Amino acid sequence: MPFLGIDLGGTKLAVALFSEAGEIVSKEIFPLENRKGTQVGQLITDQIQKYLDSDRTMIQSIGVSVPGISRSKSGTVWAPNIPGWEDYPLLQEIRQLTGSIPVQIESDRTCYILGEQWQGNAQSCTDAIYLSVGTGIGAGIMADGHVLHGAHDIAGAIGWMALRKPFQSKYTDCGCFEYYASGEGIARLTREILAQRTYYRGELRKETSENITAHQVFAAYLKRDTVAIQVINECIEYWGMAAANLISIFNPQKLIFGGGVFGPAVQFIPLIREEAAKWAQPVSMKQVSFEESVLGGNAGVVGAGFLALKNIHNPA
Amino acid sequence: MPFLGIDLGGTKLAVALFSEAGEIVSKEIFPLENRKGTQVGQLITDQIQKYLDSDRTMIQSIGVSVPGISRSKSGTVWAPNIPGWEDYPLLQEIRQLTGSIPVQIESDRTCYILGEQWQGNAQSCTDAIYLSVGTGIGAGIMADGHVLHGAHDIAGAIGWMALRKPFQSKYTDCGCFEYYASGEGIARLTREILAQRTYYRGELRKETSENITAHQVFAAYLKRDTVAIQVINECIEYWGMAAANLISIFNPQKLIFGGGVFGPAVQFIPLIREEAAKWAQPVSMKQVSFEESVLGGNAGVVGAGFLALKNIHNPA
Repeated sequence: MPFLGIDLGGTKLAVALFSEAGEIVSKEIFPLENRKGTQVGQLITDQIQKYLDSDRTMIQSIGVSVPGISRSKSGTVWAPNIPGWEDYPLLQEIRQLTGSIPVQIESDRTCYILGEQWQGNAQSCTDAIYLSVGTGIGAGIMADGHVLHGAHDIAGAIGWMALRKPFQSKYTDCGCFEYYASGEGIARLTREILAQRTYYRGELRKETSENITAHQVFAAYLKRDTVAIQVINECIEYWGMAAANLISIFNPQKLIFGGGVFGPAVQFIPLIREEAAKWAQPVSMKQVSFEESVLGGNAGVVGAGFLALKNIHNPA
Repeated sequence: MPFLGIDLGGTKLAVALFSEAGEIVSKEIFPLENRKGTQVGQLITDQIQKYLDSDRTMIQSIGVSVPGISRSKSGTVWAPNIPGWEDYPLLQEIRQLTGSIPVQIESDRTCYILGEQWQGNAQSCTDAIYLSVGTGIGAGIMADGHVLHGAHDIAGAIGWMALRKPFQSKYTDCGCFEYYASGEGIARLTREILAQRTYYRGELRKETSENITAHQVFAAYLKRDTVAIQVINECIEYWGMAAANLISIFNPQKLIFGGGVFGPAVQFIPLIREEAAKWAQPVSMKQVSFEESVLGGNAGVVGAGFLALKNIHNPA
């Protein structure tokens, strides 16, 4: 009984066919290019239709991960990086093709922790949190065996965590934690410091500073660049404080670091743990392990697959 | 089918007899005086025995709220303010009396949110958080219909929330948020400011500053005392940031403020909301209401009663 896991990102669509045993039989990637609104919906439904039309497969269930919020009551999706997806009727569009085949759509952060629970580092956990740090920051939270959704499906918006008072208006668009400690925050702080250091002659030359990326900062850190070290140390403090807050609030077994930044920042996990240990409830701190995502870029598609699999066993 | 709700605090024991309809028929308060260790256990079991011996009542179920952590696997209790209760076998002691009558022990913060869910401000909520601010700070958290316990029953330790970097060693004993914004934190900051203001002649005279309490600071605030205003404004900032973090993480329907400080600090709830609104995920912020506990000092005993009631309907 094969099933589909579909991971819609901000720039590409991944479609994976899973075998009954939960293995990925095939996986295709489609860049979104300049698609927007219904064009993105069409790309998804075209791919699903292709599998439904195939003689070889008999798709039993479909799970979809979306880069934003899946509104469970309406079946619509808010995806800030896809133009026209403020309240997109994705569930309805897919159901028009699929008839009685179960379909479930969840936010990417929900899928990440589900993916780790199924095939990654959160297997056998009842309480585990996936910290996704990339362009933005969010968390997939499994507490007492349930993945949290919140009253209106927006739980886990940890990029908005308040970590540094007083409030500054620059936090308004993305939240304090994300402002400082996302991939974009790392690049921004690096640019700010470089603009002040007239005599800087290090790895991160001023001529590239307009387009500087977090990955360049990580590379410069490995070469002991003083600006990179300053930026990363600042970030470790924020990541540690945020980790501590999640530990004190949830008393989890595991914190799992993933997303584009973790990635290269996994080297800092021991330092993040050290910072968190200063702040967190001390008993809970001893009970948690800090790990990296083993699924990496596959976490979304695997989590979407797990949505599909669960609906085969427990139809909604 | 009457049942008992028992609320053990740091200084007193409250025992309430509930009618089948969920009303408190009688309630007795016993100061702990200088009891410690097994003496406190004895006080509890004596009271239970009294009800079990009575001809008038046929106790069907017992719920107990404890000022610390109830370890669900061992049935033991950690209560930092009761000497000798590092790992106290309370469940075992009670069960020796009660035979087949169901008994459940939970932390006070769990009981507070259950009390509000049953008879207070969280009725009909699936997602609500009780912020208990007194000598210490903790939260009872109901998320997606479940009260969170965490992997080892320590969830909700929000007094440890990291809100102000860099870390300072004075946070080590109680956590950053609790250091600044508990009843004790309010008194401490007031003393610090008074010690610096040689020429201060306001409500909070220096001669009382050794023993100053949060309640005196609230009273002075109402008389526009400049020190009290400075202290309370600082606290509102921390309470607002912590509220914002809970809102961004949980997307709840309600935040309920209780404990000894709320109490008099309920007058500041609109200002706390204003501060939280600067920091929190903006959509979640619009979906949450800020309320005071309607159960006040009864929240623990009512929550303990609800534990008992639930076990009548769904025996463990």
